[in-house]
Amino acid sequence: MKLVVIGGDAAGMSAASQARKRIGPGDLEIVVFERGRFTSYSACGIPYWIGGAVDDRDALIARSPAEHRKNGIDVRLRHDVVGIDLDRRFVVARDLADGGEVRESFDHLVYAAGASPVVPDWARVRDAGVFGVQTLEDGDAIHAWLDGSGVRPHPRRAVVIGGGYIGVEMAEAMIQRGLQVTLLEKSPEPMGKTVDPEIGAMVREAISGLGIEIVTNAHVDGVETADGRVRAVVTPGGSLPADIVVMGLGVRPNTSIARDAGLPLGPTGGLRTDLRMRVEGLENVWAAGDCVETRHLITGRPVHVPLGTHANKQGRVAGINIGGGYATFPGVIGTAVTKVCDLEVARTGLTSHEAGQAGYEFVTATVESTSRAGYYPGASAMTVKLIAERRTGLLLGAQIVGRAEAAKRIDALALAVWNKMTVEEMTALDLSYAPPFAPVWDPVLIAARKATDAVHAG
Amino acid sequence: MKLVVIGGDAAGMSAASQARKRIGPGDLEIVVFERGRFTSYSACGIPYWIGGAVDDRDALIARSPAEHRKNGIDVRLRHDVVGIDLDRRFVVARDLADGGEVRESFDHLVYAAGASPVVPDWARVRDAGVFGVQTLEDGDAIHAWLDGSGVRPHPRRAVVIGGGYIGVEMAEAMIQRGLQVTLLEKSPEPMGKTVDPEIGAMVREAISGLGIEIVTNAHVDGVETADGRVRAVVTPGGSLPADIVVMGLGVRPNTSIARDAGLPLGPTGGLRTDLRMRVEGLENVWAAGDCVETRHLITGRPVHVPLGTHANKQGRVAGINIGGGYATFPGVIGTAVTKVCDLEVARTGLTSHEAGQAGYEFVTATVESTSRAGYYPGASAMTVKLIAERRTGLLLGAQIVGRAEAAKRIDALALAVWNKMTVEEMTALDLSYAPPFAPVWDPVLIAARKATDAVHAG
Repeated sequence: MKLVVIGGDAAGMSAASQARKRIGPGDLEIVVFERGRFTSYSACGIPYWIGGAVDDRDALIARSPAEHRKNGIDVRLRHDVVGIDLDRRFVVARDLADGGEVRESFDHLVYAAGASPVVPDWARVRDAGVFGVQTLEDGDAIHAWLDGSGVRPHPRRAVVIGGGYIGVEMAEAMIQRGLQVTLLEKSPEPMGKTVDPEIGAMVREAISGLGIEIVTNAHVDGVETADGRVRAVVTPGGSLPADIVVMGLGVRPNTSIARDAGLPLGPTGGLRTDLRMRVEGLENVWAAGDCVETRHLITGRPVHVPLGTHANKQGRVAGINIGGGYATFPGVIGTAVTKVCDLEVARTGLTSHEAGQAGYEFVTATVESTSRAGYYPGASAMTVKLIAERRTGLLLGAQIVGRAEAAKRIDALALAVWNKMTVEEMTALDLSYAPPFAPVWDPVLIAARKATDAVHAG
Repeated sequence: MKLVVIGGDAAGMSAASQARKRIGPGDLEIVVFERGRFTSYSACGIPYWIGGAVDDRDALIARSPAEHRKNGIDVRLRHDVVGIDLDRRFVVARDLADGGEVRESFDHLVYAAGASPVVPDWARVRDAGVFGVQTLEDGDAIHAWLDGSGVRPHPRRAVVIGGGYIGVEMAEAMIQRGLQVTLLEKSPEPMGKTVDPEIGAMVREAISGLGIEIVTNAHVDGVETADGRVRAVVTPGGSLPADIVVMGLGVRPNTSIARDAGLPLGPTGGLRTDLRMRVEGLENVWAAGDCVETRHLITGRPVHVPLGTHANKQGRVAGINIGGGYATFPGVIGTAVTKVCDLEVARTGLTSHEAGQAGYEFVTATVESTSRAGYYPGASAMTVKLIAERRTGLLLGAQIVGRAEAAKRIDALALAVWNKMTVEEMTALDLSYAPPFAPVWDPVLIAARKATDAVHAG
């Protein structure tokens, strides 16, 4: 039996490894085609490697091609899959080294081609200092550009386009590298798609505090280049000088090969799968990671949430099922976390905007509390916002902003959303308490009380 | 209408405040009898005040008697309730200042008399340097003893009896005050009632690392005194010199007055209440806090869990109900947390021992992971242990040990226990991920995966 995997990062290699764990090399041949030069790396870590918190690219690699090969997985780097024949069950891959094509038959296929940064037409300038942040190759390229090459001066001014997770993280990385940084965001506040506006305003303050200039309600018309290098970002309000431009406009699933082969795409543009990560309507064809869409467990709607944590889980589920086991990936609830300087920001479930879009009527409750008992050294302020359905009190979403020890508390709220708890039931939760860890009324409980009052009043 | 409250700490004052919030002074008179000189304070903070992390006793007081009085609550300090007449609906209190007795009628009664440290007969020596740790008065007395009085030398050697939360926290406090400290624990490992033995062994290591001598499997025969001061703790293995002895053998509910009045006690020795915190079988008599027993939501059994967080919730629930609202306290699942030096320890649900006692057959899974992505600065090792029912995979309990950012993650596991999740369902949980906050496989998810394998194998 032969398994062919398209894409050698988190999803693809998790699938390959799980299948291998269940079926030995004698009974299952595994071939992985990977366009790049690396496998199983943490794309999420790239901003920290650019900024210098992580000093070595290899630290981001969880498992190298050599390690996978030792595990009996035939990893073919720099191979770009250019076609899939579902009827005759083979894929065609181009060797990027020599342009030659290879054909590989399969019994099982895992499509895990990932996603690519959204790049507007005007940003399609090659080797001019305009970068997406998705692969380790992107990271290498940014590092090389920042370090200069002897033939040009070091960049001094960076413009980051897009104030979501990657944009904010990359803006901070650029500041850490000593550049002047401008962050452009089309929403009224940074992280406008991710958190409610007043939470975004706190992020804005933290960004500004780092010395990053932030422009919201921003529009970009294009970039100016000279001598093949970017010189400025053009906006309706004028040109912003830039020696490097980083694109943080999100990513789109890499599905062109899949679409050409007839694999079904959903409304988000991602591949459609069942709960076992089998491509909808197909036997023995699986998909996982940033190229698939999944289900939002609160709204029931399809969503595209390209995060490493989902990619790993989905790949593992596909691999278990290919290996003869049984596992499912039921969907997501939109949990996410990041930090800006020492400001931690986290969310789960739906934002106010998302709840309204889904058709919910809802109440919100926001409380200010502290990470530790107020009298205990190191206590710091934190904000918890809950969004609950009107009348039923069903917890729809939550957001946390604070300093150290704040954001990871979102996980408790994620479990409340996951388990469809009401805010009133949450007021009784048995959360851990001791003065070094929480006030006697945990911030989550205070927020649940206030939200319960709002539900009763509404 | 008149509400009389017995006990002015967390439970009693929460009840009084909630009732007041709903019914103004014109319609509800509230009288609180408190034996001590303080109200609404954090007993859990006392070890940190003794150790010096908190430098002021008043910081532990959430709301003073004066503040409560301003809120229309008639707080009578230094008043010891000595009798309750349920038929004629009055209580008798003794003024500790002059020994005089007052009688106060009630329409509603809240019994919130708290708990007292377990003190063996041999430790009942007054003013000799043997202390329990329960009230601010206890804390004052310990401070005074440690500071000396001019007529005697400063204590140099402390023996702490009992290696549970209070014992461990007080041992650390004594080390911080510069004393030589010996901690005696009758179990094979410290925190023997709280966590599984191998987790207790990690606590032992942290305790020893602080320079505290720890004796486990210990037995105490008594104390030696001379000139009215403790000189040593007597054990079968010999005498341990001691200038101060701290008792950390747990607490027992203060129920003698309630029992004399005919209020029902449960098998744990605590008062029995319904979900609304009404004393079982009685109208308009309520109880809350360390003097009541509650229900363990996993075993269904009555338990006595004297923690400030429960006391506050129970008092609030009683006060809402007295005030004409509706609220319940469904029970507890045994969540707790503490730290020893920089070692954080947390638990929820049942330990292995407790699960066995309850009749469960179970599997366990223990994993070592890190608090942040391994490559991210500041990542530290943490251990997660899960206990799951055999066959069903129901999560019965969890324990976490680690350094910074580890223990508060128990809350997510507390919600999993609370919501009766299986470890297999937990493998799909949408927990927050970013390199500064977790590895791409959160330690909780890794543990859930391993526990799932154990369930399938078992």
